[in-house]
Amino acid sequence: MRHGGDVISYAEHYNGEIIDFSSNINPLGAPKTLKKKLFSDFNNVLKYPDIKYRELKEEISEYLGCTACEVIVGNGAVEIIDNICRMFKRVIVAAPCFSEYLERAEVNKIQLIITRRREDFEIDFPSISKVIKEGDLLILGNPNNPTGKRIGREVLEDIYDLVNKRNAFLLIDEAFFEFCPDDYDSIKLFYGKNNVCIIRAATKFFALPGIRLGYAYTSSEVVKNYDNYCLPWSVNSFAERAGREIFKEEEYIRESKEYISRQRNYLLNSLRNINYLKVFDSDCNFILLKLINFEEEELFNFLLKRGILIRRASSFQGLDESYVRIAVKDNKSNKKLIKLLKEFEKWKL
Amino acid sequence: MRHGGDVISYAEHYNGEIIDFSSNINPLGAPKTLKKKLFSDFNNVLKYPDIKYRELKEEISEYLGCTACEVIVGNGAVEIIDNICRMFKRVIVAAPCFSEYLERAEVNKIQLIITRRREDFEIDFPSISKVIKEGDLLILGNPNNPTGKRIGREVLEDIYDLVNKRNAFLLIDEAFFEFCPDDYDSIKLFYGKNNVCIIRAATKFFALPGIRLGYAYTSSEVVKNYDNYCLPWSVNSFAERAGREIFKEEEYIRESKEYISRQRNYLLNSLRNINYLKVFDSDCNFILLKLINFEEEELFNFLLKRGILIRRASSFQGLDESYVRIAVKDNKSNKKLIKLLKEFEKWKL
Repeated sequence: MRHGGDVISYAEHYNGEIIDFSSNINPLGAPKTLKKKLFSDFNNVLKYPDIKYRELKEEISEYLGCTACEVIVGNGAVEIIDNICRMFKRVIVAAPCFSEYLERAEVNKIQLIITRRREDFEIDFPSISKVIKEGDLLILGNPNNPTGKRIGREVLEDIYDLVNKRNAFLLIDEAFFEFCPDDYDSIKLFYGKNNVCIIRAATKFFALPGIRLGYAYTSSEVVKNYDNYCLPWSVNSFAERAGREIFKEEEYIRESKEYISRQRNYLLNSLRNINYLKVFDSDCNFILLKLINFEEEELFNFLLKRGILIRRASSFQGLDESYVRIAVKDNKSNKKLIKLLKEFEKWKL
Repeated sequence: MRHGGDVISYAEHYNGEIIDFSSNINPLGAPKTLKKKLFSDFNNVLKYPDIKYRELKEEISEYLGCTACEVIVGNGAVEIIDNICRMFKRVIVAAPCFSEYLERAEVNKIQLIITRRREDFEIDFPSISKVIKEGDLLILGNPNNPTGKRIGREVLEDIYDLVNKRNAFLLIDEAFFEFCPDDYDSIKLFYGKNNVCIIRAATKFFALPGIRLGYAYTSSEVVKNYDNYCLPWSVNSFAERAGREIFKEEEYIRESKEYISRQRNYLLNSLRNINYLKVFDSDCNFILLKLINFEEEELFNFLLKRGILIRRASSFQGLDESYVRIAVKDNKSNKKLIKLLKEFEKWKL
C-alpha cells in the first residue's frame, strides 16, 4: 500500500460511510464558487488544453510571486517529481519521507542514496553533507510526509548553501505549504537561484485530489529543460480550468488556514493525553503517531471496524509497524477519532 | 512544433475563428449525452479517483473484449507509451511515425533504433528483421501517424511472429482505431499473447482531447509490471467519469464511423484532382500530402491567413519540407479547405 485514500478497498469492512483519515485533504472541501465556474463551459473542458498552459501559468505565477516563465505545471506534484528525477543521475532522500521520491528514482533507474533523519525526524545535516556531490538531486519534503514538521528556515538555508557549493540541485516538495504557519516562504528565500525547484499542489489544500494539479517554481532555464522531459497536455482541461480559478479565493484560503490550525491544536493536545501514543509535533494537516507496546495493524483494524480509515506508516522507509499517520479533519470527525482512540485503550486492557 | 492543435499560437494571424485541420479529432464532437452525465455529480469529480480504476477498467474491458485485469489506463495514449518504454532497454521505430515514440525513448535514455519505411510508407519488414533482438520494444502506429494507412493483417501477423521469435515486445499504437474500416481487430488477433500491448484512446474518436484518457490491452502479467512504473492517479476523476460513459454510445460510434468514411472519401477524391498534390491513401481521419514543387511553409501561411491551420509535417523524422498533414473534418470545413487549396494553385501561377 503506497498511498492513503483508497477507501474503496476497505468499504466491505464497515457498514456505512468510512471517514478517511488516511489521506490529507482540506476538510472544508473545495472553494464553494468552483462548481459554477467549472461547469459553465462544457465545450471548453473537452478541447485540448493550451499545450503551453499560458493562462494557467500566469495565474500561478501571480499566486506564487514569480513570473509565468518560472512556472512548471504537472499531473499532481508527483509528475513533476518524476520528470525532475529524469534530469539527474543520482537522487538523495532523507528517510522517512514520501514514498514516491524513492519510487520515481527507481522507476527511472537512477541511483538512489537514502540518508536517515535524526531520531526526532529532523534533517541530519552531516549525513547529507557526507554523500552529496556534483550533479546530485536532493529531494526534501517541507513539511515532510509522514513526519509533519517543516524544515527550520536556517537549516533550509544551510542545506541550500551546501547544495550550491557542491553544484547539486535542491527539490523542495511543499505540497502541504498552505496548511503551515506563515514563518517563511521558500520561494522568496531562493528566488532567482538556478539550482532549486519548489513544488506545490492544488490537491491537498484546495481539496481537489480528483483534479490532479501540481505546480512548481524554478528558474526559467530549468523550466526550458523540464519541457524536454514532460508529457504533452498532462494537465487536462478540467484541471487547467480549475487552476485558473482557485488562487483568487483569498477568503477561502484564510479560513482554511485558521480552521486547520485550530483543529491541529485540538488533535495534538487530545492525542498527547492518550498514554499509548507518542505524538510527533506537526506544522500541517497530518500527524505521525508512534504506538507504544503494540502494532499498527491492531489499531488499524479496530478503527476500520468502527468506520475510520487511518494510514499504517510501516510502508514508509525507515518506519516500523509501530507508526500510524492521521489527517487533521473536520471537528466532528476529529472528535470521533479521539473518542475511539480512548476506547481502544480500554478495549486493550 | 512537436504537435498539432496549438491554435492559440496562431490566433493573431487571422481575424476570426481558425478551423483546426492540424489536430485529428472527430468532427461530430463528443457524445451528446456526456455533459449531463459528467456534470451531475460535482463532488465526485473532486474526490481522488479509485487508485486501481476498478470500474473504469471494467467498462473498458467490455468495450475491448478482454478482462479488466488485462487493461491499462493512462493520461492519454502518450503516458502509456512513456511507461512501456521504461520497461525496455532498446526501442525500435519505423519512421516516419508519431514523434513521441522517439521523444519518449530519448527522455527515458533508452537506445533508439530508427528504421525507415518503404517509399510508399508501408512497413519495411527486412529492415526491422535486421535489427530486432531479444528484449527490444518495437513500436508501430496502426494506422500510422502521419502517413494514415493501417498495417495489413498478414503483415502485422508476420511482424508479431518475428517479434515473438526474437523474444522482443510489440507495442501497437491504435489511437485512431475506430476511424478505420472494420477489416480486423488486433486485440482479437493477439489475445492471450504475452509480448504485445495494443493502445487505444478516447482523445480522437470520442472527441475528448481535453480529458486525456488512453487505455490499452495487454496480458495481466504485463499489467502487473506496468503498475510498478506508472504514476498514481494519472487519470483524473473527470476523465475517469467520462471513460465510464462513452463506450456505451453505440449509435454515436456507428454514426461517427460512417461520417468519417464519407468525408474521407470526399477529401481523397477532391485532393486527387489537385495537380500540385501527391495524395497518400488513408484508412483514418487524417491524410498526408506531398507538395510538388514548393514547400509546406508557403501553403501553411496561405491557409492560415484564410483561417485554416494545417500541420506542417517536416517535424516528423524522415519527412522533408514538402509534406503536410490535414485532418478529415466536417463537410463544410472540408469544402472550404478544398476550395482554398484550388485557389492556392491559381495564386501561385
